[in-house]
Amino acid sequence: MSLSAFPAVVTLPVLWGDQDLFGHVNNTIYIRWFESARVAYWDSTGMRDLLLPLSCGPILAAVHCNYRKQLKYPDTIQVGASVRQLGRTSLKIEHQVYSEQRKEVVADGESIVVVFNYAKQQSEVVSDELRRLIEQVERPFQMGKAE
Amino acid sequence: MSLSAFPAVVTLPVLWGDQDLFGHVNNTIYIRWFESARVAYWDSTGMRDLLLPLSCGPILAAVHCNYRKQLKYPDTIQVGASVRQLGRTSLKIEHQVYSEQRKEVVADGESIVVVFNYAKQQSEVVSDELRRLIEQVERPFQMGKAE
Amino acid sequence: MSLSAFPAVVTLPVLWGDQDLFGHVNNTIYIRWFESARVAYWDSTGMRDLLLPLSCGPILAAVHCNYRKQLKYPDTIQVGASVRQLGRTSLKIEHQVYSEQRKEVVADGESIVVVFNYAKQQSEVVSDELRRLIEQVERPFQMGKAE
Amino acid sequence: MSLSAFPAVVTLPVLWGDQDLFGHVNNTIYIRWFESARVAYWDSTGMRDLLLPLSCGPILAAVHCNYRKQLKYPDTIQVGASVRQLGRTSLKIEHQVYSEQRKEVVADGESIVVVFNYAKQQSEVVSDELRRLIEQVERPFQMGKAE
Repeated sequence: MSLSAFPAVVTLPVLWGDQDLFGHVNNTIYIRWFESARVAYWDSTGMRDLLLPLSCGPILAAVHCNYRKQLKYPDTIQVGASVRQLGRTSLKIEHQVYSEQRKEVVADGESIVVVFNYAKQQSEVVSDELRRLIEQVERPFQMGKAE
Repeated sequence: MSLSAFPAVVTLPVLWGDQDLFGHVNNTIYIRWFESARVAYWDSTGMRDLLLPLSCGPILAAVHCNYRKQLKYPDTIQVGASVRQLGRTSLKIEHQVYSEQRKEVVADGESIVVVFNYAKQQSEVVSDELRRLIEQVERPFQMGKAE
Repeated sequence: MSLSAFPAVVTLPVLWGDQDLFGHVNNTIYIRWFESARVAYWDSTGMRDLLLPLSCGPILAAVHCNYRKQLKYPDTIQVGASVRQLGRTSLKIEHQVYSEQRKEVVADGESIVVVFNYAKQQSEVVSDELRRLIEQVERPFQMGKAE
Repeated sequence: MSLSAFPAVVTLPVLWGDQDLFGHVNNTIYIRWFESARVAYWDSTGMRDLLLPLSCGPILAAVHCNYRKQLKYPDTIQVGASVRQLGRTSLKIEHQVYSEQRKEVVADGESIVVVFNYAKQQSEVVSDELRRLIEQVERPFQMGKAE
């Protein structure tokens, strides 16, 4: 699967300062890239516009990253986000990181995100409206079956 | 299980700048804390001294973090690392993050680390010597069975 | 002058991940340390309690850092903040970074901070009350003359 | 003066995670941008190719940043680097940060860089060859007079 399977894709430069003592991009940077892809998803799909008036927003419950290849400066990466599963209160988002220099996927992983009501300070059930929105966004990208 | 179950524990201050727009410690910071705990493990257990002369060092293959509670500045956290499983070429390290302010575990997760030969640029089998060292370090902390 | 000349001093560990490709602590980390010292100043001197009810807070107008010695992991640093000059709308804060490993000052610099009214979205004149507070805090540490 | 006056200009996205609790891009991020512009300068002008065979590289002696306007996500910035003065052992580099969203310069500053011999672990006099290279690079951008 290429990044064409992701509704939200962000293209980001690798910075020299992203590298650590080992001479490759530090592991924390990939987690920041995942975050950027998630934010692009909220913004570009209308999720943000749907949740904000309800005092709700996504909150990260878990993140997982598989580091498959080392990256070095200079490079440009593409990082994708796609909602693969919808639970009762959570969304499972798949990520991939593609290196334009290496011309291959260098990392993948997932984020588990909960819909959080900031006014009530508690998580919320994924509403039917949100479910429909995500399914509509993901359908062209073949979303996996719900949990 | 408390952090007393971890052979390596690092105590770190939460910085104001660790917080993001949502008013809590950003998700990438926990991954940096995990890294600090792994490094403390190499340094304090003798793993580093064993591997360095062989041009070998640990390389991160995967990381997972469960964000269980929000953190705010000011706080001080303790982050632990403990090798729970030894595979043929990999180590599975468990982490916990304990908040001194909240007096509870606020996050946990794991790192999968591979022994990497920097001279040969390839991963290595976990040697018997390394296996013995880790078992000796972990025994007082009840290491789980090997994979 | 030692860090004993600073009303606010924060002690922070150097993290392995603070180091960059050059094998020393990256230049951006010192700027984060300065920030931590400024925040400690607001919190510990009562400045924050004075400004917050007025919808005011400090905003950084400029920062300067002299990198005098290289730092490596492991080390522990102390970073200080002291208001050296009071302008009409700004405060000039001096910083020093002291390495416990090297037993010397490894960096120094200054921050120019403006009192910003977040409700009005504009800077404010340093009030007499704030001026008195800072002079009281700094007197034992021999504050320089006002601009 | 616009960024057209800078021999090295890097275009970078503002990340959501670049923002801090105050809802604007954190002050440390600008320092990272300056670093990216300096690195682009070494790489694109031939400075790196000149210094590396001599075991020499640039080391940052001081940095200064004036924060003139607040930045928010989403935005794209351009950051420039230009050597404005050549000292005996140091280079004074001017920086500007231009916001594509705000269509104005939002920050400026400078870096003082020393030519450092990593083999001898000491700074070096700016060689005639390096001086000629920089003058050639900067001439079309009207370099200021030498100190």
